[in-house]
Amino acid sequence: MYNFKGRDIIDINDFSKEELLFILKTAKKFDPQYVKRDRSNYTIAQGKIAALLFFEPSTRTEQSFKSAAQKIGMGIIGFDDPEATSIHKGESFSDTVRIMNSYADVLVMRHPESGAAKKAADVADIPVINAGDGANQHPTQTMLDLYTIMKEAGHLDGITVALMGDLKYGRTVHALSLALSHFKVKQIFISHSTLSMPDEFLQILDQRKVIYEQFDHLPDNLQADFLYQTRVQKERFKDLNEYKKVKDKFILDASFKKYLDKGVKLMHPLPRINEVDPSLDSHPNAIYFSQARNGLYIREALLGLVLGRIDPPVARSS
Amino acid sequence: MYNFKGRDIIDINDFSKEELLFILKTAKKFDPQYVKRDRSNYTIAQGKIAALLFFEPSTRTEQSFKSAAQKIGMGIIGFDDPEATSIHKGESFSDTVRIMNSYADVLVMRHPESGAAKKAADVADIPVINAGDGANQHPTQTMLDLYTIMKEAGHLDGITVALMGDLKYGRTVHALSLALSHFKVKQIFISHSTLSMPDEFLQILDQRKVIYEQFDHLPDNLQADFLYQTRVQKERFKDLNEYKKVKDKFILDASFKKYLDKGVKLMHPLPRINEVDPSLDSHPNAIYFSQARNGLYIREALLGLVLGRIDPPVARSS
Amino acid sequence: MYNFKGRDIIDINDFSKEELLFILKTAKKFDPQYVKRDRSNYTIAQGKIAALLFFEPSTRTEQSFKSAAQKIGMGIIGFDDPEATSIHKGESFSDTVRIMNSYADVLVMRHPESGAAKKAADVADIPVINAGDGANQHPTQTMLDLYTIMKEAGHLDGITVALMGDLKYGRTVHALSLALSHFKVKQIFISHSTLSMPDEFLQILDQRKVIYEQFDHLPDNLQADFLYQTRVQKERFKDLNEYKKVKDKFILDASFKKYLDKGVKLMHPLPRINEVDPSLDSHPNAIYFSQARNGLYIREALLGLVLGRIDPPVARSS
Repeated sequence: MYNFKGRDIIDINDFSKEELLFILKTAKKFDPQYVKRDRSNYTIAQGKIAALLFFEPSTRTEQSFKSAAQKIGMGIIGFDDPEATSIHKGESFSDTVRIMNSYADVLVMRHPESGAAKKAADVADIPVINAGDGANQHPTQTMLDLYTIMKEAGHLDGITVALMGDLKYGRTVHALSLALSHFKVKQIFISHSTLSMPDEFLQILDQRKVIYEQFDHLPDNLQADFLYQTRVQKERFKDLNEYKKVKDKFILDASFKKYLDKGVKLMHPLPRINEVDPSLDSHPNAIYFSQARNGLYIREALLGLVLGRIDPPVARSS
Repeated sequence: MYNFKGRDIIDINDFSKEELLFILKTAKKFDPQYVKRDRSNYTIAQGKIAALLFFEPSTRTEQSFKSAAQKIGMGIIGFDDPEATSIHKGESFSDTVRIMNSYADVLVMRHPESGAAKKAADVADIPVINAGDGANQHPTQTMLDLYTIMKEAGHLDGITVALMGDLKYGRTVHALSLALSHFKVKQIFISHSTLSMPDEFLQILDQRKVIYEQFDHLPDNLQADFLYQTRVQKERFKDLNEYKKVKDKFILDASFKKYLDKGVKLMHPLPRINEVDPSLDSHPNAIYFSQARNGLYIREALLGLVLGRIDPPVARSS
Repeated sequence: MYNFKGRDIIDINDFSKEELLFILKTAKKFDPQYVKRDRSNYTIAQGKIAALLFFEPSTRTEQSFKSAAQKIGMGIIGFDDPEATSIHKGESFSDTVRIMNSYADVLVMRHPESGAAKKAADVADIPVINAGDGANQHPTQTMLDLYTIMKEAGHLDGITVALMGDLKYGRTVHALSLALSHFKVKQIFISHSTLSMPDEFLQILDQRKVIYEQFDHLPDNLQADFLYQTRVQKERFKDLNEYKKVKDKFILDASFKKYLDKGVKLMHPLPRINEVDPSLDSHPNAIYFSQARNGLYIREALLGLVLGRIDPPVARSS
């Protein structure tokens, strides 16, 4: 259907509703819930190399990409400690990208600065996948969140998703909210008033005629299919006092079990510190670990697609 | 014969004599001394991922597992510097294990604390292989030691194995002694009196009717097929003075050549500092480097077995 | 033609003209400019392990070898931070090499000391590839430089190559000059008088009847097919004042474009700091990034050759 060969994956907003659905559908080809994985999976991208350029650490994202790349037969190179690279000898960002570009077939980049992935794509002649650029974008996280919701609910239209925690600085929830706005999904925002969803995002939702509600606490009678909880990240705060005031307001303790019992599925991008109580983990509606695993299938699909190694005919038949 | 698919490899004492023999037999399938390696080896575990969680460094064990995993077609993820992972952000041990579990097909774990591998296995739903948990267990080391002895002697029953060095704190020799106690192997313990084999182990040997002798020095007329030398490890001592007193008492200098000439085969788990003189290395009965290489075959076998990728029919025919 | 199976790659001067040409020819088999890469490439060295022993960091060389090894199906083990290995526990260089030797099929070694690669080859029973040993040798760099020149010019005899920058301490230019001396290549040396080509090299060129010229500045009417620019490396200077005096004398600023326009192809081993202006990068005759990529093909060829995995009949047909 769609040809993603050579395409950069920089910003979730670069993708139409149809393209997102195509990616989710392709991810199913790698998910044992839908298909039996066989030898054809393992060699999809044999002989290809992914260069992981992690200019800041991000264990889960890095490990997930490394696993996904190798599961479809790729080799991996790269770094996760930029201090250990030539950068300390004075080499420019552009040169580092270009050199890694010359050794690899796809670049996966994590960087603390907004816009860094786009800058890399401008100098690279192989596809660049943004694995998080500062407060800006982390499109594969958004795609795996969407995939998890679709997989668990069976569909996207007609459901309700509540987003809770840090809605002001939370890159993850902003991107997910906009991605969900393509679909007939009701959105519920739950946060302390100092951490509520920024107006610029609410205006976009209004334009797209998305139905949403806002709460400054978790409602007792929450009517939602999913609750997406995020951590209040200290590093996003300029004022440490503001952080201390709100950090423990929106944690989910053992009493959240009653929501899970009523059918609310609990998602979390992980890692968690204390914002989700471990006693909830064993509940079948606590789906954050399978959410993490879904990241594998999305990343296998994206790597295969941008390398042009997933044949369109196969894609059609899915 | 035995189905190890999904099984954790935590403690050498979890394995019956028959299971140990089955593992040794399977390892032969990867050893060029017995078989010509071919393409079928390389793809045994294609598409599978080993996550190596090294909470403390252990170069040889880590490199050996990485080589073994890749030699049978696996990809590898993981870390060997827990400071660099999310743990420093406050993530729990359980969450780290569960996340890596969601990206991988088998976990290989090294940890400074006794019992850590078991704790990991309790939360993981994929097999866990203990690559050393503190002073407790390191079962793949024991298996490679057994394999080396069986390979060099041609059999296990009827031989004599001398264990020398730190027999009090030495995890390696404790585990090997117990594993050998399944067989008709005479054991000789050689150590300074402050580092002799603990009573609890001797009692087990007595129960199993193992014949053993104890010496506080290397006997001139040592009657043994193997001498297993271990380093007196400073880090196992609480009292540094005790360490200084004994550390140089049981080193093997160039004069040990006369034992090698008489047919005693010298083993060592490596690394060595000064406890085996390099002038002995070239002697055909100094077998510590081939002992290290045997670790590859044991680990290839175990990875293939716990992944269910070594077919029982093939196993039977060996 | 030539059988490189098991051969060490230590010093460019160990190779005859004919052997160098055979290696360059083999590298073409991995270069998409000459062949369509297919599945047969990916599995050339399947089941084989390269151990990368980087006793000092060298990002580009390490990443290039890792990519090359994986592109032909190999797994990789090793270290690039010797502090993190057993060496800090007191293990000897020889033991580290022997242990890695026991886990791998080829060793790739980078070391700050001249002669280290040879020392490793003396204790290893698998092939050792020198990835740079101090001020001494970096033969795969020289081979990729030769390959780049041959690929760009279509041949080696009859061309002119100018070498500029640090010709006194520059290992790269010394080795390239000697390698080029096998062919009918005119050489031009451009450097500050304190950094000129050492007499010992000029004497060899004289013996081999190589035509060369020397300049203490970049001539306006440079008659050369290639200009090979190198950085004046601070770490090679004993006297920091000498370094400061010459470091900016031989940088190429935007005005070098007129040379590129006239057909001079600009090479550089990278990384560069300020010695080549980025405005030149987009010029088709600025070939340093494709030069870097050529390192992949040379390293794939060498790994395949020393492993005996490139069949002679295939080699003949190229």
